[in-house]
Amino acid sequence: MEAKPEGGARRGRPGHDQATVLRVAIELFNRQGYDATSMGDLARELGLTKSAIYHHVPSKGHLLERALDEALGELSSALDAVRADTSSTPEQRLRAAVRSSVVVLAEHLPAVTLLLRVRGNTPAEVAALDRRRDIDHRLAEMVREAAASGAIRDDIDPLVISRLIFGMVNSLTEWLRDDGDVDALADTVTALAFDGLVRAH
Amino acid sequence: MEAKPEGGARRGRPGHDQATVLRVAIELFNRQGYDATSMGDLARELGLTKSAIYHHVPSKGHLLERALDEALGELSSALDAVRADTSSTPEQRLRAAVRSSVVVLAEHLPAVTLLLRVRGNTPAEVAALDRRRDIDHRLAEMVREAAASGAIRDDIDPLVISRLIFGMVNSLTEWLRDDGDVDALADTVTALAFDGLVRAH
Repeated sequence: MEAKPEGGARRGRPGHDQATVLRVAIELFNRQGYDATSMGDLARELGLTKSAIYHHVPSKGHLLERALDEALGELSSALDAVRADTSSTPEQRLRAAVRSSVVVLAEHLPAVTLLLRVRGNTPAEVAALDRRRDIDHRLAEMVREAAASGAIRDDIDPLVISRLIFGMVNSLTEWLRDDGDVDALADTVTALAFDGLVRAH
Repeated sequence: MEAKPEGGARRGRPGHDQATVLRVAIELFNRQGYDATSMGDLARELGLTKSAIYHHVPSKGHLLERALDEALGELSSALDAVRADTSSTPEQRLRAAVRSSVVVLAEHLPAVTLLLRVRGNTPAEVAALDRRRDIDHRLAEMVREAAASGAIRDDIDPLVISRLIFGMVNSLTEWLRDDGDVDALADTVTALAFDGLVRAH
């Protein structure tokens, strides 16, 4: 496909497409905090003037919404896919949910990191927290089903199990870098969640 | 012991001792972020004038340092106590480390929550991150010793195990309220870390 310099020129510097602007914005939000980041900071990071940045995006809030949509959409789709597999057992579905949560987190690390830091300071953040709570409920429901099927322990409240296991998954955002083997990591987290630290019998 | 109204009056309103000011400050920092909280906000929350607040504390940074010292001091002392018990096995020491990390987190929930949100924006925060890293290294070392003793699995990098298990412990700050049974919670987290989700054999 040929480049279209006229379109590029109309929309600002070439290379500064919507995806690039969003990627750089998420990186800045994670580094210095959403509230502390101005559109001027973003323009500077992209090498644009403050007025040119508004050719790319209507507002800072719009970027936050798109970032949170990315993370929530991916997490939600992954769970939909797991639930759609009706041929698997509740335990297999829970394993798949843990596994695919790790994969989504690793493959969308900046957006998921931003999502997990949201505290509900704006209506968009409150809406994101609602959607996150809905995902948490669906995960807790999967734990409940696996416990009811007799496949996993039932001596711990399924809600507490869900919070602890997905708390462990989410803690990956604290140290993960995006240069590792995602599948191997997903296997590791799933093995630790299901089998624990004790030596395999 | 009798009340000392003269001392209380000289230091501001009665009841606003150093501990109260620190407790309210930590709560505010956690609720609205350290950077976004001013000494004026803190004075308002305490029902003091902005100038009166400086009778209690020299600066906002001083409050942050004391809060981080509380969390780091408690975590570090708990690990010292675990290591000092030389009659126990490496596995027992690791269990005790997981268990007492949960207890410290639950009993110093606001200060530990603040510590875990620190990103290194000030010299005091950088120093706290250094001390936190030192604690993480000591925890990883305990995992390494337990794996070397043959008591826990050795198919996962001890550093990764340490990050995941203590990531799970730290994720408690996301949802824990300070009205639960701390010992029962510590047992639950330790059981899940060591035995995993699978039904006990």
